[in-house]
Amino acid sequence: MKDFTLDNLTDVAVEAYTKNAVSPRHAEIFSALIKHLHAFAKEVELTEAEWIEGIQFLTETGKKCDDKRQEFILLSDTLGLSMVVDAINHPKGGKGTESTVLGPFYVDGAPEVESGSNIIKRDIGGEKVLVTGTVSDAEGKPLKGATLDVWQTANNQLYDVQDPDAPEWNLRAKIKAKDNGEFSFVSEKPTSYPVPTDGPVGKLLSAAGRHAYRPAHLHFMVAAPGYETLTTHIFVDGDQYLDSDAVFATKADLVAKFEPSTDKNLATEYDLPVPFSKVHYDFGLMPA
Amino acid sequence: MKDFTLDNLTDVAVEAYTKNAVSPRHAEIFSALIKHLHAFAKEVELTEAEWIEGIQFLTETGKKCDDKRQEFILLSDTLGLSMVVDAINHPKGGKGTESTVLGPFYVDGAPEVESGSNIIKRDIGGEKVLVTGTVSDAEGKPLKGATLDVWQTANNQLYDVQDPDAPEWNLRAKIKAKDNGEFSFVSEKPTSYPVPTDGPVGKLLSAAGRHAYRPAHLHFMVAAPGYETLTTHIFVDGDQYLDSDAVFATKADLVAKFEPSTDKNLATEYDLPVPFSKVHYDFGLMPA
Repeated sequence: MKDFTLDNLTDVAVEAYTKNAVSPRHAEIFSALIKHLHAFAKEVELTEAEWIEGIQFLTETGKKCDDKRQEFILLSDTLGLSMVVDAINHPKGGKGTESTVLGPFYVDGAPEVESGSNIIKRDIGGEKVLVTGTVSDAEGKPLKGATLDVWQTANNQLYDVQDPDAPEWNLRAKIKAKDNGEFSFVSEKPTSYPVPTDGPVGKLLSAAGRHAYRPAHLHFMVAAPGYETLTTHIFVDGDQYLDSDAVFATKADLVAKFEPSTDKNLATEYDLPVPFSKVHYDFGLMPA
Repeated sequence: MKDFTLDNLTDVAVEAYTKNAVSPRHAEIFSALIKHLHAFAKEVELTEAEWIEGIQFLTETGKKCDDKRQEFILLSDTLGLSMVVDAINHPKGGKGTESTVLGPFYVDGAPEVESGSNIIKRDIGGEKVLVTGTVSDAEGKPLKGATLDVWQTANNQLYDVQDPDAPEWNLRAKIKAKDNGEFSFVSEKPTSYPVPTDGPVGKLLSAAGRHAYRPAHLHFMVAAPGYETLTTHIFVDGDQYLDSDAVFATKADLVAKFEPSTDKNLATEYDLPVPFSKVHYDFGLMPA
Protein backbone atom coordinates (compact mmCIF):
# COMPACT_ATOMS: atom_id res chain seq x y z
CA MET A 1 0.00 0.00 0.00
CA LYS A 2 0.87 3.68 -0.39
CA ASP A 3 2.83 5.28 2.45
CA PHE A 4 2.27 9.04 2.59
CA THR A 5 5.54 10.84 3.38
CA LEU A 6 6.97 14.34 3.31
CA ASP A 7 8.53 13.50 -0.04
CA ASN A 8 5.38 12.37 -1.84
CA LEU A 9 2.46 14.06 -0.04
CA THR A 10 2.34 17.13 -2.27
CA ASP A 11 2.42 15.10 -5.49
CA VAL A 12 -0.17 12.65 -4.16
CA ALA A 13 -2.51 15.45 -3.05
CA VAL A 14 -2.11 17.38 -6.32
CA GLU A 15 -2.92 14.22 -8.27
CA ALA A 16 -5.97 13.53 -6.11
CA TYR A 17 -7.32 17.06 -6.70
CA THR A 18 -6.57 17.28 -10.40
CA LYS A 19 -7.19 13.95 -12.10
CA ASN A 20 -10.98 14.09 -11.74
CA ALA A 21 -11.54 17.81 -11.14
CA VAL A 22 -14.75 19.21 -12.63
CA SER A 23 -12.85 21.60 -14.92
CA PRO A 24 -9.25 22.33 -15.99
CA ARG A 25 -9.50 25.68 -14.16
CA HIS A 26 -10.46 23.92 -10.92
CA ALA A 27 -7.51 21.57 -11.39
CA GLU A 28 -5.16 24.52 -12.01
CA ILE A 29 -6.27 26.37 -8.88
CA PHE A 30 -6.27 23.27 -6.64
CA SER A 31 -2.81 22.32 -7.83
CA ALA A 32 -1.29 25.75 -7.16
CA LEU A 33 -3.10 26.03 -3.82
CA ILE A 34 -1.84 22.67 -2.54
CA LYS A 35 1.72 23.29 -3.74
CA HIS A 36 1.95 26.69 -2.04
CA LEU A 37 0.18 25.53 1.13
CA HIS A 38 2.51 22.54 1.57
CA ALA A 39 5.59 24.56 0.58
CA PHE A 40 4.70 27.22 3.15
CA ALA A 41 4.45 24.61 5.95
CA LYS A 42 7.71 22.93 4.90
CA GLU A 43 9.60 26.18 4.46
CA VAL A 44 8.88 27.40 7.99
CA GLU A 45 8.79 23.87 9.46
CA LEU A 46 5.42 24.63 10.97
CA THR A 47 5.01 23.13 14.45
CA GLU A 48 1.81 21.41 15.56
CA ALA A 49 1.15 24.21 18.07
CA GLU A 50 1.48 26.80 15.28
CA TRP A 51 -0.78 24.72 13.02
CA ILE A 52 -3.55 24.57 15.62
CA GLU A 53 -3.11 28.31 16.28
CA GLY A 54 -3.63 28.84 12.55
CA ILE A 55 -6.76 26.64 12.60
CA GLN A 56 -8.14 28.63 15.54
CA PHE A 57 -7.30 31.93 13.85
CA LEU A 58 -9.18 30.96 10.68
CA THR A 59 -12.11 29.63 12.72
CA GLU A 60 -12.38 32.88 14.69
CA THR A 61 -12.12 34.85 11.45
CA GLY A 62 -15.11 32.95 10.06
CA LYS A 63 -17.06 33.39 13.29
CA LYS A 64 -16.48 37.15 13.17
CA CYS A 65 -18.25 37.42 9.79
CA ASP A 66 -21.90 38.39 9.61
CA ASP A 67 -24.11 40.35 7.23
CA LYS A 68 -22.33 43.57 8.21
CA ARG A 69 -18.79 42.41 8.88
CA GLN A 70 -16.49 40.49 6.55
CA GLU A 71 -13.35 39.59 8.49
CA PHE A 72 -11.96 37.36 5.70
CA ILE A 73 -12.05 40.28 3.24
CA LEU A 74 -10.33 42.36 5.91
CA LEU A 75 -7.73 39.60 6.31
CA SER A 76 -7.20 39.47 2.53
CA ASP A 77 -6.95 43.27 2.46
CA THR A 78 -4.46 43.56 5.31
CA LEU A 79 -2.25 40.79 3.87
CA GLY A 80 -2.07 42.64 0.55
CA LEU A 81 -3.86 39.81 -1.27
CA SER A 82 -6.83 41.94 -2.31
CA MET A 83 -4.55 44.48 -3.99
CA VAL A 84 -2.65 41.68 -5.76
CA VAL A 85 -5.97 40.42 -7.13
CA ASP A 86 -6.93 43.98 -8.07
CA ALA A 87 -3.61 44.52 -9.84
CA ILE A 88 -3.90 41.22 -11.72
CA ASN A 89 -7.38 42.07 -12.97
CA HIS A 90 -6.87 45.80 -13.59
CA PRO A 91 -3.29 46.18 -14.81
CA LYS A 92 -1.75 49.62 -14.29
CA GLY A 93 -1.05 51.66 -17.39
CA GLY A 94 -4.38 51.04 -19.06
CA LYS A 95 -6.62 54.00 -19.77
CA GLY A 96 -9.49 54.77 -17.43
CA THR A 97 -9.36 55.49 -13.72
CA GLU A 98 -7.36 53.09 -11.58
CA SER A 99 -9.18 50.70 -9.31
CA THR A 100 -8.51 49.74 -5.71
CA VAL A 101 -9.92 47.42 -3.04
CA LEU A 102 -13.62 46.98 -2.37
CA GLY A 103 -13.00 46.66 1.36
CA PRO A 104 -15.21 44.84 3.86
CA PHE A 105 -17.89 47.54 4.32
CA TYR A 106 -19.66 47.72 0.98
CA VAL A 107 -23.40 47.09 1.28
CA ASP A 108 -25.42 46.36 -1.83
CA GLY A 109 -28.73 48.18 -2.28
CA ALA A 110 -28.03 51.77 -1.19
CA PRO A 111 -30.92 54.13 -2.00
CA GLU A 112 -30.70 55.86 -5.40
CA VAL A 113 -30.57 59.63 -5.14
CA GLU A 114 -30.37 62.50 -7.62
CA SER A 115 -27.09 64.26 -8.32
CA GLY A 116 -26.74 67.17 -5.93
CA SER A 117 -28.13 65.31 -2.91
CA ASN A 118 -26.88 65.57 0.64
CA ILE A 119 -26.09 62.05 1.93
CA ILE A 120 -25.51 63.03 5.56
CA LYS A 121 -28.30 61.39 7.55
CA ARG A 122 -26.92 62.41 10.94
CA ASP A 123 -24.79 65.49 11.49
CA ILE A 124 -22.11 64.89 14.13
CA GLY A 125 -20.06 67.93 13.27
CA GLY A 126 -17.85 66.62 10.46
CA GLU A 127 -16.53 69.16 7.96
CA LYS A 128 -19.00 69.41 5.04
CA VAL A 129 -17.59 68.57 1.65
CA LEU A 130 -19.02 69.21 -1.81
CA VAL A 131 -17.94 66.39 -4.12
CA THR A 132 -18.18 67.14 -7.83
CA GLY A 133 -16.97 65.33 -10.92
CA THR A 134 -17.78 63.64 -14.17
CA VAL A 135 -18.14 60.11 -15.48
CA SER A 136 -16.82 59.61 -18.99
CA ASP A 137 -15.24 56.93 -21.12
CA ALA A 138 -11.46 56.57 -21.19
CA GLU A 139 -11.25 59.22 -23.94
CA GLY A 140 -13.21 61.78 -21.90
CA LYS A 141 -16.58 61.39 -23.68
CA PRO A 142 -19.34 61.87 -21.05
CA LEU A 143 -21.39 58.76 -20.33
CA LYS A 144 -25.17 58.77 -20.05
CA GLY A 145 -26.90 56.75 -17.33
CA ALA A 146 -23.92 56.54 -14.97
CA THR A 147 -24.38 55.81 -11.26
CA LEU A 148 -21.91 56.20 -8.39
CA ASP A 149 -22.33 53.94 -5.38
CA VAL A 150 -20.66 55.89 -2.56
CA TRP A 151 -19.78 54.87 1.00
CA GLN A 152 -17.47 56.22 3.69
CA THR A 153 -16.84 56.55 7.42
CA ALA A 154 -18.40 59.35 9.42
CA ASN A 155 -16.39 61.86 11.40
CA ASN A 156 -16.27 59.35 14.29
CA GLN A 157 -14.15 56.98 12.14
CA LEU A 158 -16.99 54.46 11.78
CA TYR A 159 -19.01 53.23 8.82
CA ASP A 160 -22.76 53.20 9.49
CA VAL A 161 -22.73 49.39 9.71
CA GLN A 162 -20.15 49.59 12.51
CA ASP A 163 -22.06 52.21 14.47
CA PRO A 164 -25.22 51.12 16.30
CA ASP A 165 -26.24 54.79 16.66
CA ALA A 166 -25.95 55.61 12.96
CA PRO A 167 -29.13 55.81 10.90
CA GLU A 168 -29.38 53.26 8.08
CA TRP A 169 -27.52 54.28 4.90
CA ASN A 170 -25.75 57.15 6.61
CA LEU A 171 -23.07 58.47 4.20
CA ARG A 172 -24.08 55.85 1.65
CA ALA A 173 -26.03 56.37 -1.56
CA LYS A 174 -26.20 55.50 -5.22
CA ILE A 175 -25.83 58.88 -6.94
CA LYS A 176 -27.42 59.19 -10.39
CA ALA A 177 -25.14 61.28 -12.61
CA LYS A 178 -26.74 63.74 -15.06
CA ASP A 179 -27.04 62.90 -18.74
CA ASN A 180 -23.89 64.93 -19.43
CA GLY A 181 -21.92 62.73 -16.99
CA GLU A 182 -21.70 65.36 -14.26
CA PHE A 183 -22.43 64.50 -10.66
CA SER A 184 -22.27 66.19 -7.29
CA PHE A 185 -23.20 65.42 -3.72
CA VAL A 186 -22.73 66.78 -0.23
CA SER A 187 -21.12 64.66 2.46
CA GLU A 188 -18.66 64.84 5.34
CA LYS A 189 -14.95 65.14 4.65
CA PRO A 190 -13.60 61.64 5.35
CA THR A 191 -11.06 61.10 8.12
CA SER A 192 -8.37 58.47 8.43
CA TYR A 193 -9.53 55.57 10.59
CA PRO A 194 -8.39 52.21 11.92
CA VAL A 195 -9.71 49.02 10.34
CA PRO A 196 -11.61 47.01 12.98
CA THR A 197 -9.12 45.62 15.50
CA ASP A 198 -11.54 43.81 17.83
CA GLY A 199 -11.27 40.55 15.83
CA PRO A 200 -8.57 38.14 14.63
CA VAL A 201 -7.19 40.65 12.10
CA GLY A 202 -6.56 43.07 14.96
CA LYS A 203 -4.49 40.38 16.71
CA LEU A 204 -2.58 39.73 13.49
CA LEU A 205 -1.73 43.41 13.06
CA SER A 206 -0.56 43.55 16.70
CA ALA A 207 1.65 40.49 16.23
CA ALA A 208 3.15 42.17 13.17
CA GLY A 209 3.61 45.46 15.03
CA ARG A 210 1.59 47.24 12.33
CA HIS A 211 -0.74 50.20 12.85
CA ALA A 212 -4.33 49.62 11.68
CA TYR A 213 -4.94 52.96 9.97
CA ARG A 214 -6.20 53.68 6.50
CA PRO A 215 -5.71 57.11 4.95
CA ALA A 216 -8.96 59.09 4.64
CA HIS A 217 -10.93 58.20 1.52
CA LEU A 218 -14.31 58.07 -0.18
CA HIS A 219 -15.34 54.70 -1.69
CA PHE A 220 -16.81 54.66 -5.20
CA MET A 221 -18.32 51.98 -7.37
CA VAL A 222 -18.93 53.72 -10.70
CA ALA A 223 -21.16 52.03 -13.29
CA ALA A 224 -22.52 52.92 -16.72
CA PRO A 225 -24.33 50.78 -19.31
CA GLY A 226 -21.84 49.02 -21.58
CA TYR A 227 -18.83 49.87 -19.38
CA GLU A 228 -16.81 47.93 -16.84
CA THR A 229 -17.84 48.83 -13.30
CA LEU A 230 -15.00 50.64 -11.53
CA THR A 231 -14.36 50.00 -7.82
CA THR A 232 -12.06 52.65 -6.42
CA HIS A 233 -11.35 55.30 -3.76
CA ILE A 234 -10.61 58.99 -3.74
CA PHE A 235 -7.93 59.61 -1.11
CA VAL A 236 -7.51 62.90 0.76
CA ASP A 237 -4.25 64.56 -0.25
CA GLY A 238 -1.90 65.17 2.67
CA ASP A 239 -3.16 62.31 4.85
CA GLN A 240 -0.41 60.98 7.11
CA TYR A 241 -1.21 57.33 6.28
CA LEU A 242 -0.99 57.52 2.46
CA ASP A 243 2.38 55.75 2.55
CA SER A 244 1.49 53.12 5.13
CA ASP A 245 -2.12 52.21 4.34
CA ALA A 246 -3.01 49.13 6.44
CA VAL A 247 -4.43 47.49 3.30
CA PHE A 248 -1.83 48.74 0.74
CA ALA A 249 -4.56 50.31 -1.43
CA THR A 250 -3.24 53.79 -2.21
CA LYS A 251 -2.35 54.91 -5.73
CA ALA A 252 -0.97 58.33 -6.57
CA ASP A 253 -3.59 58.98 -9.27
CA LEU A 254 -6.41 58.44 -6.79
CA VAL A 255 -5.28 61.17 -4.41
CA ALA A 256 -7.30 64.40 -4.70
CA LYS A 257 -7.07 67.81 -3.08
CA PHE A 258 -9.89 68.68 -0.66
CA GLU A 259 -9.75 72.47 -0.67
CA PRO A 260 -11.59 75.03 1.44
CA SER A 261 -14.12 77.10 -0.48
CA THR A 262 -15.98 80.28 0.40
CA ASP A 263 -18.06 80.26 -2.80
CA LYS A 264 -21.38 81.78 -1.63
CA ASN A 265 -23.32 80.70 -4.73
CA LEU A 266 -22.34 77.07 -4.23
CA ALA A 267 -22.99 77.36 -0.50
CA THR A 268 -26.53 78.57 -1.25
CA GLU A 269 -27.13 76.00 -3.99
CA TYR A 270 -26.08 73.08 -1.76
CA ASP A 271 -27.18 74.57 1.59
CA LEU A 272 -23.61 74.57 2.95
CA PRO A 273 -21.98 76.57 5.75
CA VAL A 274 -19.11 78.81 4.64
CA PRO A 275 -16.29 77.84 4.42
CA PHE A 276 -16.84 74.27 3.20
CA SER A 277 -14.50 71.73 1.66
CA LYS A 278 -14.58 70.96 -2.05
CA VAL A 279 -13.14 68.15 -4.12
CA HIS A 280 -13.45 67.34 -7.82
CA TYR A 281 -12.67 64.05 -9.57
CA ASP A 282 -13.23 62.92 -13.15
CA PHE A 283 -13.77 59.16 -13.55
CA GLY A 284 -12.97 57.36 -16.79
CA LEU A 285 -14.54 53.95 -17.43
CA MET A 286 -13.36 51.19 -19.77
CA PRO A 287 -15.73 49.38 -22.16
CA ALA A 288 -17.12 46.16 -20.72
CA MET B 1 4.00 58.81 -2.35
CA LYS B 2 4.20 55.04 -2.66
CA ASP B 3 2.23 53.45 -5.49
CA PHE B 4 1.38 49.82 -4.72
CA THR B 5 1.77 47.69 -7.86
CA LEU B 6 1.96 44.03 -8.80
CA ASP B 7 5.74 44.37 -8.87
CA ASN B 8 6.23 45.74 -5.37
CA LEU B 9 3.18 44.61 -3.36
CA THR B 10 4.75 41.39 -2.04
CA ASP B 11 7.95 43.12 -0.92
CA VAL B 12 6.01 45.99 0.65
CA ALA B 13 3.69 43.62 2.53
CA VAL B 14 6.54 41.40 3.71
CA GLU B 15 8.39 44.45 5.00
CA ALA B 16 5.26 45.72 6.78
CA TYR B 17 4.79 42.36 8.54
CA THR B 18 8.42 41.72 9.46
CA LYS B 19 10.12 44.97 10.44
CA ASN B 20 8.21 45.34 13.72
CA ALA B 21 6.95 41.78 14.29
CA VAL B 22 6.80 40.71 17.93
CA SER B 23 9.34 37.90 17.39
CA PRO B 24 11.70 36.62 14.66
CA ARG B 25 9.51 33.51 14.39
CA HIS B 26 6.41 35.64 13.73
CA ALA B 27 8.36 37.53 11.07
CA GLU B 28 9.50 34.26 9.46
CA ILE B 29 5.97 32.84 9.31
CA PHE B 30 4.36 36.10 8.10
CA SER B 31 6.98 36.49 5.39
CA ALA B 32 6.55 32.94 4.01
CA LEU B 33 2.75 33.18 4.27
CA ILE B 34 2.55 36.45 2.32
CA LYS B 35 5.01 35.27 -0.35
CA HIS B 36 3.12 32.03 -0.98
CA LEU B 37 -0.31 33.66 -0.83
CA HIS B 38 0.65 36.35 -3.35
CA ALA B 39 2.53 33.86 -5.55
CA PHE B 40 -0.51 31.58 -5.62
CA ALA B 41 -2.79 34.41 -6.79
CA LYS B 42 -0.29 35.57 -9.43
CA GLU B 43 0.46 32.07 -10.67
CA VAL B 44 -3.18 31.25 -11.40
CA GLU B 45 -4.09 34.88 -12.26
CA LEU B 46 -6.93 34.70 -9.77
CA THR B 47 -10.04 36.51 -11.00
CA GLU B 48 -12.13 38.73 -8.73
CA ALA B 49 -15.02 36.25 -8.95
CA GLU B 50 -12.72 33.42 -7.85
CA TRP B 51 -11.33 35.57 -5.04
CA ILE B 52 -14.80 36.30 -3.65
CA GLU B 53 -15.70 32.61 -4.00
CA GLY B 54 -12.63 31.84 -1.92
CA ILE B 55 -13.65 34.43 0.68
CA GLN B 56 -17.13 32.89 0.86
CA PHE B 57 -15.70 29.37 1.09
CA LEU B 58 -13.49 30.31 4.04
CA THR B 59 -16.35 32.18 5.72
CA GLU B 60 -18.66 29.16 5.42
CA THR B 61 -15.90 26.91 6.71
CA GLY B 62 -15.62 29.06 9.83
CA LYS B 63 -19.39 29.16 10.27
CA LYS B 64 -19.53 25.35 10.11
CA CYS B 65 -17.25 25.04 13.14
CA ASP B 66 -18.71 24.54 16.60
CA ASP B 67 -17.75 22.70 19.77
CA LYS B 68 -18.32 19.35 18.02
CA ARG B 69 -17.29 20.09 14.44
CA GLN B 70 -14.00 21.50 13.20
CA GLU B 71 -14.34 22.16 9.47
CA PHE B 72 -10.96 23.94 9.20
CA ILE B 73 -9.17 20.87 10.57
CA LEU B 74 -11.15 18.81 8.06
CA LEU B 75 -10.06 21.21 5.31
CA SER B 76 -6.43 20.97 6.41
CA ASP B 77 -6.76 17.17 6.55
CA THR B 78 -8.35 16.80 3.12
CA LEU B 79 -5.77 19.13 1.50
CA GLY B 80 -2.95 17.00 2.89
CA LEU B 81 -1.66 19.87 5.04
CA SER B 82 -2.23 18.07 8.33
CA MET B 83 -0.10 15.14 7.18
CA VAL B 84 2.63 17.50 5.99
CA VAL B 85 2.68 19.07 9.46
CA ASP B 86 2.65 15.60 11.02
CA ALA B 87 5.54 14.47 8.81
CA ILE B 88 7.57 17.63 9.59
CA ASN B 89 7.15 17.13 13.33
CA HIS B 90 7.43 13.34 13.45
CA PRO B 91 9.94 12.38 10.75
CA LYS B 92 9.65 8.85 9.43
CA GLY B 93 12.45 6.45 10.26
CA GLY B 94 12.70 7.37 13.91
CA LYS B 95 12.03 4.72 16.51
CA GLY B 96 8.64 4.53 18.16
CA THR B 97 5.24 4.10 16.55
CA GLU B 98 4.45 6.37 13.65
CA SER B 99 1.96 9.18 14.12
CA THR B 100 -0.89 10.31 11.93
CA VAL B 101 -3.57 13.01 11.88
CA LEU B 102 -5.65 13.99 14.91
CA GLY B 103 -8.71 14.53 12.74
CA PRO B 104 -11.63 16.81 13.51
CA PHE B 105 -13.49 14.56 15.97
CA TYR B 106 -11.24 14.35 18.98
CA VAL B 107 -12.96 15.48 22.18
CA ASP B 108 -10.91 16.21 25.26
CA GLY B 109 -12.08 14.81 28.60
CA ALA B 110 -13.24 11.28 27.80
CA PRO B 111 -14.00 9.24 30.95
CA GLU B 112 -11.07 7.24 32.33
CA VAL B 113 -11.77 3.49 32.43
CA GLU B 114 -9.79 0.44 33.55
CA SER B 115 -8.05 -1.77 31.02
CA GLY B 116 -10.46 -4.51 29.94
CA SER B 117 -13.51 -2.23 29.77
CA ASN B 118 -16.22 -2.36 27.15
CA ILE B 119 -16.60 1.11 25.62
CA ILE B 120 -19.78 0.36 23.65
CA LYS B 121 -22.50 2.55 25.18
CA ARG B 122 -25.11 1.62 22.58
CA ASP B 123 -25.15 -1.65 20.67
CA ILE B 124 -26.35 -1.19 17.10
CA GLY B 125 -25.13 -4.55 15.85
CA GLY B 126 -21.54 -3.78 14.95
CA GLU B 127 -19.07 -6.66 15.05
CA LYS B 128 -17.47 -6.85 18.51
CA VAL B 129 -13.72 -6.49 18.61
CA LEU B 130 -11.27 -7.21 21.39
CA VAL B 131 -8.38 -4.76 21.17
CA THR B 132 -5.22 -5.75 23.02
CA GLY B 133 -1.71 -4.38 23.05
CA THR B 134 1.11 -2.88 25.03
CA VAL B 135 2.62 0.56 25.60
CA SER B 136 6.39 0.58 25.84
CA ASP B 137 9.31 2.83 25.09
CA ALA B 138 10.97 2.68 21.67
CA GLU B 139 13.19 -0.19 22.86
CA GLY B 140 10.20 -2.26 24.00
CA LYS B 141 10.49 -1.63 27.74
CA PRO B 142 6.93 -1.51 29.18
CA LEU B 143 5.85 1.91 30.46
CA LYS B 144 4.04 2.41 33.76
CA GLY B 145 1.13 4.86 34.00
CA ALA B 146 0.26 4.88 30.30
CA THR B 147 -3.17 5.97 29.09
CA LEU B 148 -4.80 5.51 25.67
CA ASP B 149 -7.40 8.03 24.61
CA VAL B 150 -9.53 6.12 22.09
CA TRP B 151 -12.25 7.30 19.69
CA GLN B 152 -13.90 5.88 16.60
CA THR B 153 -17.04 5.78 14.47
CA ALA B 154 -19.86 3.40 15.26
CA ASN B 155 -21.15 0.81 12.83
CA ASN B 156 -23.39 3.52 11.29
CA GLN B 157 -20.27 5.41 10.08
CA LEU B 158 -20.78 8.24 12.59
CA TYR B 159 -18.78 9.48 15.57
CA ASP B 160 -20.91 10.04 18.68
CA VAL B 161 -20.60 13.81 18.21
CA GLN B 162 -22.11 13.51 14.72
CA ASP B 163 -24.99 11.34 15.83
CA PRO B 164 -27.80 12.97 17.85
CA ASP B 165 -29.01 9.50 18.90
CA ALA B 166 -25.67 8.36 20.27
CA PRO B 167 -25.13 8.42 24.02
CA GLU B 168 -22.36 10.74 25.22
CA TRP B 169 -18.84 9.23 25.00
CA ASN B 170 -20.04 6.29 22.90
CA LEU B 171 -16.95 4.45 21.62
CA ARG B 172 -14.72 6.95 23.38
CA ALA B 173 -12.68 6.45 26.53
CA LYS B 174 -9.35 7.01 28.16
CA ILE B 175 -8.07 3.49 28.84
CA LYS B 176 -5.66 3.10 31.76
CA ALA B 177 -2.99 0.56 30.79
CA LYS B 178 -1.76 -1.86 33.48
CA ASP B 179 1.56 -1.31 35.24
CA ASN B 180 3.19 -3.78 32.86
CA GLY B 181 2.10 -1.68 29.87
CA GLU B 182 -0.63 -4.07 28.74
CA PHE B 183 -4.06 -2.81 27.81
CA SER B 184 -7.26 -4.24 26.40
CA PHE B 185 -10.77 -3.05 25.68
CA VAL B 186 -13.89 -4.18 23.88
CA SER B 187 -15.39 -2.08 21.13
CA GLU B 188 -17.00 -2.35 17.70
CA LYS B 189 -14.90 -3.17 14.67
CA PRO B 190 -14.53 0.17 12.87
CA THR B 191 -15.91 0.59 9.36
CA SER B 192 -14.75 2.86 6.58
CA TYR B 193 -16.79 6.06 6.46
CA PRO B 194 -17.08 9.34 4.59
CA VAL B 195 -15.77 12.52 6.18
CA PRO B 196 -18.67 14.98 6.62
CA THR B 197 -19.73 16.25 3.19
CA ASP B 198 -22.58 18.55 4.24
CA GLY B 199 -20.25 21.54 4.56
CA PRO B 200 -17.73 23.48 2.44
CA VAL B 201 -15.21 20.61 2.47
CA GLY B 202 -17.85 18.37 0.89
CA LYS B 203 -18.24 20.90 -1.93
CA LEU B 204 -14.47 21.03 -2.36
CA LEU B 205 -14.22 17.24 -2.63
CA SER B 206 -17.04 17.26 -5.21
CA ALA B 207 -15.30 19.94 -7.27
CA ALA B 208 -12.15 17.84 -7.19
CA GLY B 209 -14.07 14.68 -8.13
CA ARG B 210 -12.70 12.99 -5.01
CA HIS B 211 -14.52 10.40 -2.87
CA ALA B 212 -14.86 11.35 0.80
CA TYR B 213 -13.99 7.98 2.35
CA ARG B 214 -11.48 7.15 5.02
CA PRO B 215 -10.35 3.57 5.52
CA ALA B 216 -11.64 2.01 8.75
CA HIS B 217 -9.52 2.90 11.79
CA LEU B 218 -9.36 3.34 15.54
CA HIS B 219 -7.97 6.66 16.82
CA PHE B 220 -5.40 6.61 19.61
CA MET B 221 -3.71 9.26 21.67
CA VAL B 222 -1.19 7.38 23.75
CA ALA B 223 0.46 9.11 26.71
CA ALA B 224 2.88 8.11 29.46
CA PRO B 225 4.76 10.27 32.00
CA GLY B 226 8.06 11.48 30.57
CA TYR B 227 7.20 10.44 27.00
CA GLU B 228 5.98 12.29 23.94
CA THR B 229 2.25 11.83 23.45
CA LEU B 230 1.58 9.81 20.30
CA THR B 231 -1.42 10.66 18.10
CA THR B 232 -2.10 7.86 15.67
CA HIS B 233 -4.55 5.37 14.14
CA ILE B 234 -4.74 1.62 13.76
CA PHE B 235 -6.11 0.89 10.30
CA VAL B 236 -8.05 -2.25 9.42
CA ASP B 237 -6.03 -4.42 7.04
CA GLY B 238 -7.78 -5.09 3.73
CA ASP B 239 -9.89 -1.92 3.70
CA GLN B 240 -10.62 -0.78 0.14
CA TYR B 241 -9.71 2.87 0.91
CA LEU B 242 -6.22 2.33 2.36
CA ASP B 243 -4.68 3.64 -0.88
CA SER B 244 -7.02 6.57 -1.39
CA ASP B 245 -7.66 7.89 2.14
CA ALA B 246 -9.52 11.22 1.79
CA VAL B 247 -7.04 12.75 4.27
CA PHE B 248 -3.83 10.97 3.11
CA ALA B 249 -3.21 9.60 6.61
CA THR B 250 -2.42 5.92 6.04
CA LYS B 251 0.98 4.41 6.82
CA ALA B 252 1.86 0.77 6.22
CA ASP B 253 3.14 0.25 9.78
CA LEU B 254 -0.19 1.37 11.23
CA VAL B 255 -2.25 -1.28 9.44
CA ALA B 256 -3.22 -4.22 11.65
CA LYS B 257 -5.06 -7.49 11.05
CA PHE B 258 -8.48 -7.77 12.64
CA GLU B 259 -8.95 -11.55 12.82
CA PRO B 260 -11.93 -13.63 13.81
CA SER B 261 -11.52 -15.52 17.07
CA THR B 262 -13.51 -18.34 18.64
CA ASP B 263 -11.45 -18.32 21.87
CA LYS B 264 -14.07 -19.30 24.49
CA ASN B 265 -11.93 -18.24 27.47
CA LEU B 266 -11.49 -14.74 26.08
CA ALA B 267 -15.16 -14.63 25.11
CA THR B 268 -16.10 -15.45 28.72
CA GLU B 269 -13.53 -13.05 30.22
CA TYR B 270 -14.72 -10.11 28.09
CA ASP B 271 -18.40 -11.14 27.76
CA LEU B 272 -18.17 -11.49 23.99
CA PRO B 273 -20.29 -13.45 21.51
CA VAL B 274 -18.40 -16.12 19.52
CA PRO B 275 -16.94 -15.54 17.01
CA PHE B 276 -15.57 -12.08 17.74
CA SER B 277 -12.89 -10.00 16.08
CA LYS B 278 -9.46 -9.55 17.65
CA VAL B 279 -6.63 -7.12 16.99
CA HIS B 280 -3.32 -6.59 18.76
CA TYR B 281 -0.99 -3.59 18.52
CA ASP B 282 2.15 -2.68 20.43
CA PHE B 283 2.79 1.06 20.78
CA GLY B 284 6.28 2.48 21.25
CA LEU B 285 6.67 6.00 22.65
CA MET B 286 9.62 8.36 22.36
CA PRO B 287 11.05 10.28 25.34
CA ALA B 288 9.59 13.77 25.70
